[in-house]
Amino acid sequence: MKAVILAAGRGSRLGELTKERPKGLVKLLGLTLLERAILSAKEGGVEDFVIVIGYKGEKIREEIGDGKRYSARIRYVENEEWEKGNGLSLLKARDHLSSESRFIIMMCDHVFDPSAIKKLVNFKEEYPFVLLVDRDLSRDTGEATRVKLSNNLVIDIGKGLKEYQALDCGLMLSTPEIFRAIEESLKVGDDSLSGGIRVLSKKGGVRALEIDGFWMDIDTPENLSEAERTLLNSLTKPEDGIISRSINRRISTRISALILKKWGRVNPNLISAFSFLIAISSSILFAIGSLALGGILAQTSSIIDGCDGEVARLGFRRSKFGAWLDSLLDRIADFSMIFGLSWGYWELAHDQVVWPLCFLSLMGTFLISYTGSKYELDFGELAVFSRVDATRDVRIFLLMIGAILGRPIETLLLLAVITNSMVIRRILITWKRWRESP
Amino acid sequence: MKAVILAAGRGSRLGELTKERPKGLVKLLGLTLLERAILSAKEGGVEDFVIVIGYKGEKIREEIGDGKRYSARIRYVENEEWEKGNGLSLLKARDHLSSESRFIIMMCDHVFDPSAIKKLVNFKEEYPFVLLVDRDLSRDTGEATRVKLSNNLVIDIGKGLKEYQALDCGLMLSTPEIFRAIEESLKVGDDSLSGGIRVLSKKGGVRALEIDGFWMDIDTPENLSEAERTLLNSLTKPEDGIISRSINRRISTRISALILKKWGRVNPNLISAFSFLIAISSSILFAIGSLALGGILAQTSSIIDGCDGEVARLGFRRSKFGAWLDSLLDRIADFSMIFGLSWGYWELAHDQVVWPLCFLSLMGTFLISYTGSKYELDFGELAVFSRVDATRDVRIFLLMIGAILGRPIETLLLLAVITNSMVIRRILITWKRWRESP
Repeated sequence: MKAVILAAGRGSRLGELTKERPKGLVKLLGLTLLERAILSAKEGGVEDFVIVIGYKGEKIREEIGDGKRYSARIRYVENEEWEKGNGLSLLKARDHLSSESRFIIMMCDHVFDPSAIKKLVNFKEEYPFVLLVDRDLSRDTGEATRVKLSNNLVIDIGKGLKEYQALDCGLMLSTPEIFRAIEESLKVGDDSLSGGIRVLSKKGGVRALEIDGFWMDIDTPENLSEAERTLLNSLTKPEDGIISRSINRRISTRISALILKKWGRVNPNLISAFSFLIAISSSILFAIGSLALGGILAQTSSIIDGCDGEVARLGFRRSKFGAWLDSLLDRIADFSMIFGLSWGYWELAHDQVVWPLCFLSLMGTFLISYTGSKYELDFGELAVFSRVDATRDVRIFLLMIGAILGRPIETLLLLAVITNSMVIRRILITWKRWRESP
Repeated sequence: MKAVILAAGRGSRLGELTKERPKGLVKLLGLTLLERAILSAKEGGVEDFVIVIGYKGEKIREEIGDGKRYSARIRYVENEEWEKGNGLSLLKARDHLSSESRFIIMMCDHVFDPSAIKKLVNFKEEYPFVLLVDRDLSRDTGEATRVKLSNNLVIDIGKGLKEYQALDCGLMLSTPEIFRAIEESLKVGDDSLSGGIRVLSKKGGVRALEIDGFWMDIDTPENLSEAERTLLNSLTKPEDGIISRSINRRISTRISALILKKWGRVNPNLISAFSFLIAISSSILFAIGSLALGGILAQTSSIIDGCDGEVARLGFRRSKFGAWLDSLLDRIADFSMIFGLSWGYWELAHDQVVWPLCFLSLMGTFLISYTGSKYELDFGELAVFSRVDATRDVRIFLLMIGAILGRPIETLLLLAVITNSMVIRRILITWKRWRESP
């Protein structure tokens, strides 16, 4: 499916940010709004784009290019009348779209969860026009286009509506019928895309579809900051452990934001490798007896370990291989740190009790990871056993505390006890769940 | 969906086996043919059965009961004319089926892979009658009913056909139209079910559907032995390692057959637990220095570890929890055996080089299991990396050899080297696969 992105406007309310650059090139967490629009649509399966440019359009051509960088095809259409309504922008793209049965329409200044595009692409009912809407009116940041609904049909649309039930999210699935509708709207003096949609809506041709995830219209610098906050907050995962939620994520999301702003779409596997190197250094420090420093490095690595996934998600660089490799390196790091600590203590005290404890900690640590991934595999659902669990963030935090306090034996004992008892608990929980719905 | 099972006949060609008992109660690997039919259909989602009984029917009622034991509902219909054609048997069940839009027809003497029932249940095209057929004519054991096809339609059916393209597998999806067809066939003197099917086929109403898995018509003691062999051979899994294929499965399937014949549908988790106990005993023997005996027990446990899955599959007692628990116990056993061997050597030689080797073997062993299950989870396909891999069967076999030879250090070193190098190989294979089709 093709998508057309309307990126002709200036966005003067963004002030200084759009003095030298068009709105589409304003950056949010290291990516321009246009890049976000393209990459979000790509996750929904769109690979062929038409971008309508106007204000400082040559800069967009220069920076975004022909799409090779995004494994997409991008063509440009110029709209010299960019100071007028955006219905004219869409009309300029007519030649590229009139032979398509359906295409996506996007605004370059709307940020949204990629699931929204998937929802549009997968929508199968036949309507001349499908508009994504949000019934949560509190999301209106002041400039939203309002939508009046009757059941699932749009019956009116416009910024000035007094009575309305939803907001226009700036994402649409259209047929070429929209072009004639805009022309009709032009005759009555309305050159906006909303004007065209209104014409279709009067004929019962506009289906409203509810958006599921986050979306935001970026008009002001405040909107930009809020979008950044929302994106960063969305990075917490349901399977995050208690230390991750209360400490690690707060720091790692800030680091990820810095990384994205400084280097853009970094390869997340590099971050995984960096975090792994810190963990291995920590193991070596443990082994040569520098317990406190080793502990601090261990926790540092645990925090940075959150960044690879975050940068991958925010930079649209998630990959199955990356996720797989990251878990693998985490497991090697877990093992090395426990063995390093044991060896360090052995060299110091030559007390053989360290070895059974080392073994039990390794086994418990291993079984926590294994029961988790095996559970997801066998039962086909996320392995969340309880809010407090011996997840990696918790284990490494305990390792740091124990190492700083200079108590390796007690730390290993504690790790062995909590990991193995959590494994037993997981077995019981799984057994119970399975008994209840086999 | 309901199913009717025709179980009225005697099956006199089974000789002594059906002298005192009807054909449906003949046992195959510990389960009667009727139990197999019921449990196979249950895996395909059928929970409501009508069984037509005749020859020694009261024994069937007694042994199979009302179905509670199989979490199914079973009702019985008697056919006193069981020595005549099986079309009459089906007619007796008419009152129970005439209000159903579609139902399954099964023969109690046909053994088949449960996928066949799923295929019928999921078939959505509207035909008065759907017949599962096999185009592989070599599967005819002598008494098969022959089917003449024109494209996907059955145009004739009967044992005496000269020209035919497929065999009747004894599994059908029917509508109540079959009853009138049998009546019509009776008028021309044919009281078989095939007669009824022929009547429908002449009107273009019988769709042929190809069977995918194994099926067999059990008429003679030789058929019974062959079915047993085929079922046992089907237990080898694509992810089985080289020692498993060449040694363990050959022994474990024989043990499983014995278990099923002696105790019937044993709870497979008991076998998992038993194999686990042997592995733990082996670890203890290692730790107290009885290396050779420990090695033999380790390999014994590895062989018996195949039986839980086999008994589960052959006894229709597979469960997600069972599979999950089995892997978990295997991992604990793996860990214990390696630590046991290390500790045994440590007590003997007090040579600290054993601990890094123990650590590396544990890590490699762990990573083999983890990369496997995580690969299946992340990539959604079976983790088969290559024919020769450091799978569990191979690792434990090496452990046994090394222990019998009294070479714990070399064994640990070998385990550490092969497991970790296989992990590196798996990373490279995964990376390559992902690069080729991300």
